[in-house]
Amino acid sequence: MSILQKDTQFPGSEDEILSCIARYFPNNTPSTILGRGDDCALFHVEQSAAVSSDLFLENIHFRRSYFTSHEIGHKALAVNLSDLAACGSRPKCFTLCLGIPEDIDMNWLNGFFSSMSNLANKYAISLVGGDLSRSPFIHISISVFGEISRLSSFLPRGGSMPGDILFVIGQLGLAHVGFELLEQFGRAAIEKWPNACKAHLQPEPQCAAGLVLSRAAFNARPPALMDVSDGLIRDLPRLLGKSGELSTSSLNHGNALGADLTLEEKNLHPEVLTWSYEQHKSPVYTALLGGEDYALLGACAPDLLPTLEAAIPEFQSIGVITDNGKITCNGHELHESEGFDHFS
Amino acid sequence: MSILQKDTQFPGSEDEILSCIARYFPNNTPSTILGRGDDCALFHVEQSAAVSSDLFLENIHFRRSYFTSHEIGHKALAVNLSDLAACGSRPKCFTLCLGIPEDIDMNWLNGFFSSMSNLANKYAISLVGGDLSRSPFIHISISVFGEISRLSSFLPRGGSMPGDILFVIGQLGLAHVGFELLEQFGRAAIEKWPNACKAHLQPEPQCAAGLVLSRAAFNARPPALMDVSDGLIRDLPRLLGKSGELSTSSLNHGNALGADLTLEEKNLHPEVLTWSYEQHKSPVYTALLGGEDYALLGACAPDLLPTLEAAIPEFQSIGVITDNGKITCNGHELHESEGFDHFS
Repeated sequence: MSILQKDTQFPGSEDEILSCIARYFPNNTPSTILGRGDDCALFHVEQSAAVSSDLFLENIHFRRSYFTSHEIGHKALAVNLSDLAACGSRPKCFTLCLGIPEDIDMNWLNGFFSSMSNLANKYAISLVGGDLSRSPFIHISISVFGEISRLSSFLPRGGSMPGDILFVIGQLGLAHVGFELLEQFGRAAIEKWPNACKAHLQPEPQCAAGLVLSRAAFNARPPALMDVSDGLIRDLPRLLGKSGELSTSSLNHGNALGADLTLEEKNLHPEVLTWSYEQHKSPVYTALLGGEDYALLGACAPDLLPTLEAAIPEFQSIGVITDNGKITCNGHELHESEGFDHFS
Repeated sequence: MSILQKDTQFPGSEDEILSCIARYFPNNTPSTILGRGDDCALFHVEQSAAVSSDLFLENIHFRRSYFTSHEIGHKALAVNLSDLAACGSRPKCFTLCLGIPEDIDMNWLNGFFSSMSNLANKYAISLVGGDLSRSPFIHISISVFGEISRLSSFLPRGGSMPGDILFVIGQLGLAHVGFELLEQFGRAAIEKWPNACKAHLQPEPQCAAGLVLSRAAFNARPPALMDVSDGLIRDLPRLLGKSGELSTSSLNHGNALGADLTLEEKNLHPEVLTWSYEQHKSPVYTALLGGEDYALLGACAPDLLPTLEAAIPEFQSIGVITDNGKITCNGHELHESEGFDHFS
């Protein structure tokens, strides 16, 4: 309970919200030892627990003007599940901290919780705890927990070697196109650009592909893997262990790795092509810049390629890891700071 | 990164904040397998993982007008650790999601992170991940993770039996007095009421006591335990398994449990007594109402009493569990809805 606003009523009441949560999220499921209702929840993991926490804030990460409550509930959980997928971890449970403004009603909350529970059910994960509060805007903070059953099946960002094949699983640039269109036209954009808008409003986490990659690591050098949330050109240096922005993983022994990318227009989504042409932009530039793709980006030894291509329908090779410390795309060297002028 | 405010600068910069975090929170400590910097962090737990997530929001849970950045950093983590203590779980690591308004500078953040890291070091826990964002007000959301090394050492809320001894560990009502004084006089209240103000501004989680209680459960029926965050009179029914507000734990087999409390003024803090007299309130009423005590409230078999009293300096018996479904204090029956008029 908040101490400063003891008497502030939630929409309906706090009891009503908790009943709504109980309706959509069964407590004490097989994936947990103890669910909601005590000071802590308890869950068992075979070898070690994977955890990731993300903010999803109104007017920072989404707008209510063009996100329905269903889409907000889905995406808030999806972007967290994408982090587990990017480690090859099997999702087990999650906690939800929710700040609720006064103009949110039970109808909105029903939409929010129902779509979040649909996604949770898809991966058989349970909501094990969290917190509710009044808030001046919608505030969502989710922590997801997964299991790594064998330490060797964890897929870190680092560990690539020159000659490894770079790959993506999922669309590059499509969510960025959706974002630009929704910002400009609101939900009216959906009719003409359904796939781009859906990629931004309702991204699908690549959990199944993450688990296939994790299994592939059982008897081989594990693929390096991460999810593309800030766009390929910002995230690729992190896979190569070049980023100063995030502290480098202890598993990362890459030094002067580079990458030669080959991005072909025929492999990009038609809506990325059409939008880019209309904007007089290079579709390849759109794909590189991206943002919120929630695709998986990885690198694997060449001998894993046939297995992965066969097992993962969306698997797409996009280049090769080099030892020269440079990143090129279709023969052009990329410098993030230069803004890729040769593409625009 | 937030998609809607890509170019918004943090105080200093995001890099500067991440450097500040790296300075105060060593990465990849012994308690984790993999710390910050990848899509997920990894930690090992012997038997099962305990998790709790809480919001700590400006103007909802604290005010900047009388909380220093040090106190905010400390309390945000302390209230979460209190949940682990209340389960007898050993803390291992935590994640931090932080929303930062524009008027926060690096000086503020240094104070915030330094006191949070002091508390984290005290319990040898590490910061393993989280998220940063712009926000119109200070938003803190923390998830803490602990280990339960034997399932029998987990201390649930339920499971008391008639005849069990009710106990608290920590001060009742003191933080509430501090809150009222700080709301009225700001930090000027600290000089005359140092202990009450400190109880509200810098509560100490009872982690050591939680672990002692957990060990006591190895060869005996485990004590029931929870932390007192909403005040004794709101939280006691939850220990007795009577609350409709939170879903009842599956470990809870209490049915018509009651409690006879004996709260003596001589056992309350002198500042609780003085403030209550000045306000023409009963000190016992102040202790019952409380709020944000972050004391531990529990019930144990009578034969555990000598061991616990010897091992936990702050241990204080406050009554006995009954089978009549009523809660009495010093002979008066309490009904939450009646506002305890006979005490005021």
